[in-house]
Amino acid sequence: MTSTAAVRALTRQREETRLPGRLARSAATSRGRTARTDEILEWVERRRREIPFSVDRIPFGELDGWSFEKHTGNLVHRTGRFFTVEGLRASVGDPPDAAWRQPILCQPEIGILGILGKEFDGVLHFLMQAKMEPGNPNLLQLSPTVQATRSNYTKVHRGAAVRYVDYFTDPGRGRVLSDVLQSEHGSWFYRKRNRNMIVEVSEAVPEHEDFRWLTLGQIAELLHRDLAVNMDARSVLAGLAGRYPSRARHSDTELLSWIAAERAAFPVRAERVPLAQVPGWTRGVSRVEEEHGRYFTVVAVSVRAGSREVGQWTQPLIEPCGEGVVAFVTREIEGVPHVLVSARAEGGFRDVELGPTVQCTPGNHGRLPAAGRPPFLDLVSDPDPSRVRYSALHSEEGGRFLNAVSRYLVLEADESQAPLLPPPGFRWVALGQLAELARHSHYVNVQARSLLSCLHAMFLRGGAR
Amino acid sequence: MTSTAAVRALTRQREETRLPGRLARSAATSRGRTARTDEILEWVERRRREIPFSVDRIPFGELDGWSFEKHTGNLVHRTGRFFTVEGLRASVGDPPDAAWRQPILCQPEIGILGILGKEFDGVLHFLMQAKMEPGNPNLLQLSPTVQATRSNYTKVHRGAAVRYVDYFTDPGRGRVLSDVLQSEHGSWFYRKRNRNMIVEVSEAVPEHEDFRWLTLGQIAELLHRDLAVNMDARSVLAGLAGRYPSRARHSDTELLSWIAAERAAFPVRAERVPLAQVPGWTRGVSRVEEEHGRYFTVVAVSVRAGSREVGQWTQPLIEPCGEGVVAFVTREIEGVPHVLVSARAEGGFRDVELGPTVQCTPGNHGRLPAAGRPPFLDLVSDPDPSRVRYSALHSEEGGRFLNAVSRYLVLEADESQAPLLPPPGFRWVALGQLAELARHSHYVNVQARSLLSCLHAMFLRGGAR
Repeated sequence: MTSTAAVRALTRQREETRLPGRLARSAATSRGRTARTDEILEWVERRRREIPFSVDRIPFGELDGWSFEKHTGNLVHRTGRFFTVEGLRASVGDPPDAAWRQPILCQPEIGILGILGKEFDGVLHFLMQAKMEPGNPNLLQLSPTVQATRSNYTKVHRGAAVRYVDYFTDPGRGRVLSDVLQSEHGSWFYRKRNRNMIVEVSEAVPEHEDFRWLTLGQIAELLHRDLAVNMDARSVLAGLAGRYPSRARHSDTELLSWIAAERAAFPVRAERVPLAQVPGWTRGVSRVEEEHGRYFTVVAVSVRAGSREVGQWTQPLIEPCGEGVVAFVTREIEGVPHVLVSARAEGGFRDVELGPTVQCTPGNHGRLPAAGRPPFLDLVSDPDPSRVRYSALHSEEGGRFLNAVSRYLVLEADESQAPLLPPPGFRWVALGQLAELARHSHYVNVQARSLLSCLHAMFLRGGAR
Repeated sequence: MTSTAAVRALTRQREETRLPGRLARSAATSRGRTARTDEILEWVERRRREIPFSVDRIPFGELDGWSFEKHTGNLVHRTGRFFTVEGLRASVGDPPDAAWRQPILCQPEIGILGILGKEFDGVLHFLMQAKMEPGNPNLLQLSPTVQATRSNYTKVHRGAAVRYVDYFTDPGRGRVLSDVLQSEHGSWFYRKRNRNMIVEVSEAVPEHEDFRWLTLGQIAELLHRDLAVNMDARSVLAGLAGRYPSRARHSDTELLSWIAAERAAFPVRAERVPLAQVPGWTRGVSRVEEEHGRYFTVVAVSVRAGSREVGQWTQPLIEPCGEGVVAFVTREIEGVPHVLVSARAEGGFRDVELGPTVQCTPGNHGRLPAAGRPPFLDLVSDPDPSRVRYSALHSEEGGRFLNAVSRYLVLEADESQAPLLPPPGFRWVALGQLAELARHSHYVNVQARSLLSCLHAMFLRGGAR
């Protein structure tokens, strides 16, 4: 109609159309700028040797600066920093059909989990960090370029600047490919969120021995290894979607309507209470635990580095009881890849979110009769190997969780195993729909995002063949 | 690739492509099935006369079943039903740059606001209700087909079934056009949400004298009248988007990134406290009020109906101090309609949401120097008539708010009044982007949704010319 005839356009396409193709090219490139994949693993091993860490369990009494508050029983740091372990009183449903109390981690700060991207020879690479976290069984894993709490990056507290963080805090340093506040574990954290970002730059980026530029193809290979890519990296990588088909089992409106119905029927009501007011949990010298040994324990560790510049600290960690299972059951419906999501009302969530088909610690359900066990648990517990599309062990955030290891699985199912008309609380969602929802907060939980990052990588590589 | 060759397709297009055209046709139809627009107003007037109501202010002591709790000072109903008036302790920012206490309405139930749609002679019509709410200055306004609390529609409490509610609670009775949990006033409500739904049916629908089928064109005309269309209807109608251009000032990813940054920088932290612990507010015989007469008061009313079947009740209401201003400043940028949104951290929100350019009660800011007044307030307070694209008085939810009237405005601005590079906390958002965000919870606040319903209607009518 009218035109400003400006030299530079004042508007742009709402959707970035070139990105999926660029991602597919990166996913198809398995020899990146740096090295072959096995050389990356060698580099991680070398860094592991060069900066040796030891993590030892200690009694709570040996924690430095941490103590249980007299009146509340909450586990807190004397500065008020870091996080606290408190109690949670939660209920789900209206009227509530489940209500309980449990210990919970509280960390209201919104941190940044950021991955830097850059093209080398026309291929997108991502800057990954070899980072130690005390709760990881193998300590060092591939992590995002930046993992920073808000205190870290706003420098409210003294301390060294976080390397590369300016690319994520200064708008305009690069081009944002993905940026969303995402929830973390709703069974362990009270409404914790981090800002998951991917930013592409064209300028030269300073190198550092803890960091390497990897293609999506290389990251995809590493995602198939056990305990190689940390949770924060998996969560952020869920933001790198390919170009998915425009058809689905349900229209977007139908899907959103189902989510609204689940949220209206199962509102999550939760408030913090003193840890001392959580019945059924006891505090010993070195653990806070549930009376039947279920769920998780709160423990304390001492972390010591071999190299003097890194130092030494103590902190509490949450240790789950037993290995978990996190699985998506998938089907191609008329050629369109779908996953079977579950609507999950976790106590620390603000709202129902979409989770994997199965997400549980089987040990917590072992004594239940089949009818009381989570749906599809039996299907994924003993899978037909010819149906397994993805399988690897991953651990959850090693800064807060100790040995929180789960078997992550993607299983292709048929109508007899996972019907198109699933049980209540489950829905077939096209991969493209899940990717679109993951652009927004509070739709896709952290376990589902982990699997989504693997599915994206597999889909992008398939699409590039 | 493969095909199941099923008679009925197992997948469908994710996006409904025919709907925008059908909405445009409905918007272009100003003589609907029922009547001309003035005949609709006559029908509303007739219903107003046929069921006369009187609403009288009473002292709190004359409330039936409502009282101030001894220890908390909260205003509650003896059954625990309906809602409560409690205190809120809120802060915004990390570290907080604002912290305050105030009275707040608490109503955790998620109700249904539903509008039924149906084609007559190939034109979509919507079933609107002439409904009395005691807080509306003119009592009776056009309302959604259904306004039901969860207690109403799940029949937890005795009481007549809500007319037409089954279309919204039984999936499969019709086709969902829009369905999303939306927040309401964050300055008055603690995390209140309602499910906003539009469902289209093809079957015959029973008629009732309180309901009429209207086209979008008729509703658009009524939206230009003062106090004709109630808040719930405006909120739901925001879900009826047209087909907007695919270009915008900022890409979708850039827009989402800005929202994530605002949410990370200005987290809303709030918890309920006893009303007795809100300093600066006093409780008199018939009002709870702020010491300087600002913001709002809590009052009590008695509602009596002339006709015996409707009966009589008493209830508290919130009455704002003075008329509000709610305005979108708009610009066409390279032919694409944009609105200037503000990032709003209201105490009762879960998160920052996008609000209108201006949303305030000028009386609360009258004594401030210009620098302390909300940005753009002066621009919209005394607008150049040739710039006014929309202007009408609307009231907020009359079941909870008494005489909560605001001037709703849409003003077209130029670079000197509203530059493309706006002040911090503001962003130019294409109408299509705002419509897309309104499909999800917690992005577009209730005042912005009111204006969005007007903008949709204006755009759809323009597009159909």
